Amino acid sequence: MIEVFIDASHRRGISTAIFDQLRDAIETGRLARDDRLPPTRDLAAQLGVSRQTVTVAYERLSGEGFIEGRAGGGTFVTRPATRDRASRTVSPLVPALPGPEREWRNTADAAPGRDLRIGQPDPALFPLVDWRRCMVAALQKHPAAYCEPAGTPELRRALAHWIGRSRGVDVTAENIVITAGAQHAVYLIARCLLRHGDTVAVEDPGYLPIARMLSGLGLRVVGVPVDHDGICVEHIPTNAKAVYVTPSHQSPTGASMSLARRRSLLTLAERHGMAILEDDYDSEFRHCDRPLEPLHRLDRTGRVLYIGTFSKIMSPSLRLGFVALPETLVEAVAAKRESIDRQTPTVMQDAMLRFIADGLLERHLRKVRRIYSERHGIVAAQLDEWRSRGLIDHSPMSHAGLHVSVRLPPGVAEKQVSRTLQRHGVTLSRYADSGVQTAPAEGLLIGFGLASTEQIPSALKFVSSSLKQAQKNKPPQPARSKK
Amino acid sequence: MIEVFIDASHRRGISTAIFDQLRDAIETGRLARDDRLPPTRDLAAQLGVSRQTVTVAYERLSGEGFIEGRAGGGTFVTRPATRDRASRTVSPLVPALPGPEREWRNTADAAPGRDLRIGQPDPALFPLVDWRRCMVAALQKHPAAYCEPAGTPELRRALAHWIGRSRGVDVTAENIVITAGAQHAVYLIARCLLRHGDTVAVEDPGYLPIARMLSGLGLRVVGVPVDHDGICVEHIPTNAKAVYVTPSHQSPTGASMSLARRRSLLTLAERHGMAILEDDYDSEFRHCDRPLEPLHRLDRTGRVLYIGTFSKIMSPSLRLGFVALPETLVEAVAAKRESIDRQTPTVMQDAMLRFIADGLLERHLRKVRRIYSERHGIVAAQLDEWRSRGLIDHSPMSHAGLHVSVRLPPGVAEKQVSRTLQRHGVTLSRYADSGVQTAPAEGLLIGFGLASTEQIPSALKFVSSSLKQAQKNKPPQPARSKK
Repeated sequence: MIEVFIDASHRRGISTAIFDQLRDAIETGRLARDDRLPPTRDLAAQLGVSRQTVTVAYERLSGEGFIEGRAGGGTFVTRPATRDRASRTVSPLVPALPGPEREWRNTADAAPGRDLRIGQPDPALFPLVDWRRCMVAALQKHPAAYCEPAGTPELRRALAHWIGRSRGVDVTAENIVITAGAQHAVYLIARCLLRHGDTVAVEDPGYLPIARMLSGLGLRVVGVPVDHDGICVEHIPTNAKAVYVTPSHQSPTGASMSLARRRSLLTLAERHGMAILEDDYDSEFRHCDRPLEPLHRLDRTGRVLYIGTFSKIMSPSLRLGFVALPETLVEAVAAKRESIDRQTPTVMQDAMLRFIADGLLERHLRKVRRIYSERHGIVAAQLDEWRSRGLIDHSPMSHAGLHVSVRLPPGVAEKQVSRTLQRHGVTLSRYADSGVQTAPAEGLLIGFGLASTEQIPSALKFVSSSLKQAQKNKPPQPARSKK
Repeated sequence: MIEVFIDASHRRGISTAIFDQLRDAIETGRLARDDRLPPTRDLAAQLGVSRQTVTVAYERLSGEGFIEGRAGGGTFVTRPATRDRASRTVSPLVPALPGPEREWRNTADAAPGRDLRIGQPDPALFPLVDWRRCMVAALQKHPAAYCEPAGTPELRRALAHWIGRSRGVDVTAENIVITAGAQHAVYLIARCLLRHGDTVAVEDPGYLPIARMLSGLGLRVVGVPVDHDGICVEHIPTNAKAVYVTPSHQSPTGASMSLARRRSLLTLAERHGMAILEDDYDSEFRHCDRPLEPLHRLDRTGRVLYIGTFSKIMSPSLRLGFVALPETLVEAVAAKRESIDRQTPTVMQDAMLRFIADGLLERHLRKVRRIYSERHGIVAAQLDEWRSRGLIDHSPMSHAGLHVSVRLPPGVAEKQVSRTLQRHGVTLSRYADSGVQTAPAEGLLIGFGLASTEQIPSALKFVSSSLKQAQKNKPPQPARSKK
């Protein structure tokens, strides 16, 4: 139904007001050609005016060729839009601060089966049928208006139970806040715990979207180097109020933080009063070695905030994650969430509860773990070969998550390799994009979430040939002194 | 599956490590009484150790009475949790700033059919069957990882088209950003357009959750008086960078902003470079008079940001809203959203698209408008009676939305009336809670979203008798000088 506005200011009469507004709607395209106008009787009733008043307006519109009556009944628009919308006005309003660089990238670039970018699970492995069944079950009753901003008690309990078993994280429902993913959890924590100008340490190379978000909050973000044992704890500035880390599977290097580092990080945090944000974004996927305990499990002082997400296990499009917090912080984080966007849609929470309670999550995880481990095996075998032929560096290989990172040999640049790959439609995430303050070493990130198990070998062949070509074309290296 | 962690530091042997961790899981309740342990073979495979190693640990647990083998196969926990969880540790971390006072309230207080609080639609009117069908349709294909943070192009187009017709808001898909409700839209705009310390004007009395949220962002929030014609434009401080208003149905007084005020607000904003945030949260419901044009429609300079929500039309639990912005601001607001929580869950967007495209939204609106108008009529008749008997003041009555507000006669306090009502299980929202800087006049807010059409008359009877009692008990008033 098209809305027509009438008030006392319409001195020229109501018919004219109706005529003006309908003509405007047609000229700007809000009423498109062949759209049907409401019957005169209906519009008159809607406006509380006589039918004759509306008829006069319609007759004038018809006389000027904007509308016509058609056989079979009904009045229709005959003209397309003829002028630009008011919305094209250039607004004088400008953002107060430069926004973060856009992170979202269109996925249209990668050729089918040649998408080796990281950070996304295989959409084809999404448990569509089971999830749909859970959603339908969750939509059997009329929804209450709001739930607690921290999440429904039932889902919080299910999540506490789940991470208690699967990750040894020892918490109850009262420690859990449901969020719209891991990044959202970090955002809420930062808004609660940190003040404008506070220092926060992040891994460098690291996960740039979170580093940028933190710096957009007016925090001083310091990149701390990462090696094969994870973040170099001795480089964390002692005035940092918080440290954001990915100990299970460092993003993007893939390093697993050693037990020694974990202990020294906890000691440092205790000594200087820091909070530790442990982002365990994809540790559900481990392919070979035994898991290390989460930092949260080693923490005896209540400083570690444990963040998890369903973005990698299920799909980022669900916007479901959570954080396990000391009880004393739950109220503040939940209140912050409430003041921003209230809560996660109830139906998503109810569906996830059922998905967990019915054992579907465990079943799904068993299935996708097997598949991703197979893919990881294919990639690992390829890496062995590259390593043996000197196409990549001899750095240790990660055994978790949905991607691996490799270092390139001296003289070979990521740019060269990926340029060749682009010509074949093979798309990689840029390692260079993970530099927070320092450009990272030349390397490649190879994801096995998006291409299927069948497609990965041929996509990797293109990487092989690009690596060979880059090796061939590399400038002569200065002779290295023998160690 | 219970996770067991093993690493080089387990000097006392792997069997002991398994024993220790399972005992810990049982003692803390992560493994509860009657939980089943994984078969020794499975756990051995999971850990990459010999089956004998696991068997030794199980035998020891069994010997100490933690677990037992049961007839029919399987090993089960025999003991309840015996000690407090590590999570009970009191964390030294404290929120950096006092959080906003909790807004969420448990709905358990109101007796059935006697809930006259405002701001919530009738859950029983939620179009459950149609919405479920749309959700199922949206869940037919595997979800892509992310969509554009501003929302799917299809839903943005559908919303532009919808508000173009129903509200005369002249925008295209490129002007729309999908949000998690109206408050979320205000939050994102504030984070984009305003700097720490900027002044923002809000209505007083007004919608406190948004005033508090803005002040939590470090903005200087100034409450501007409201009368029967809406916000008193002449009291808006000229240094305000933004004004947040609810012109169609002022929250909570119910006033509709007069055309003259609308024009002078636009003039003021233009003169002093302000942004206007127009929150049109419930104008879909109008019960008698003709609609006034939204501010957005009168704006020729691109200063009005038009905010809408499905919280009142459908349910706040959906977390679906939107804002129509000048194109030049869309990128910044979308980027801000991306850096916080990325996007609205795709399935919610796809379901809403179908709900609109299939004409279900229009059908639903026709239905609920009829029902809410009937309820409004019941309340209005009651108000006429109260007015004629001097139980409430002679202020004009609002003809839109899901609640009305009334002023109490001199000497009668909201507190008195609501205290009596509480004894009968009748719950009202507190008018006094809408004071931003100034305590509002004594009045009542009467919502007709939550109690059904059948229940409202009897709930109103309790209000009548409370009003009468308050009138009877009121202290003698000083004689008023005749005008």
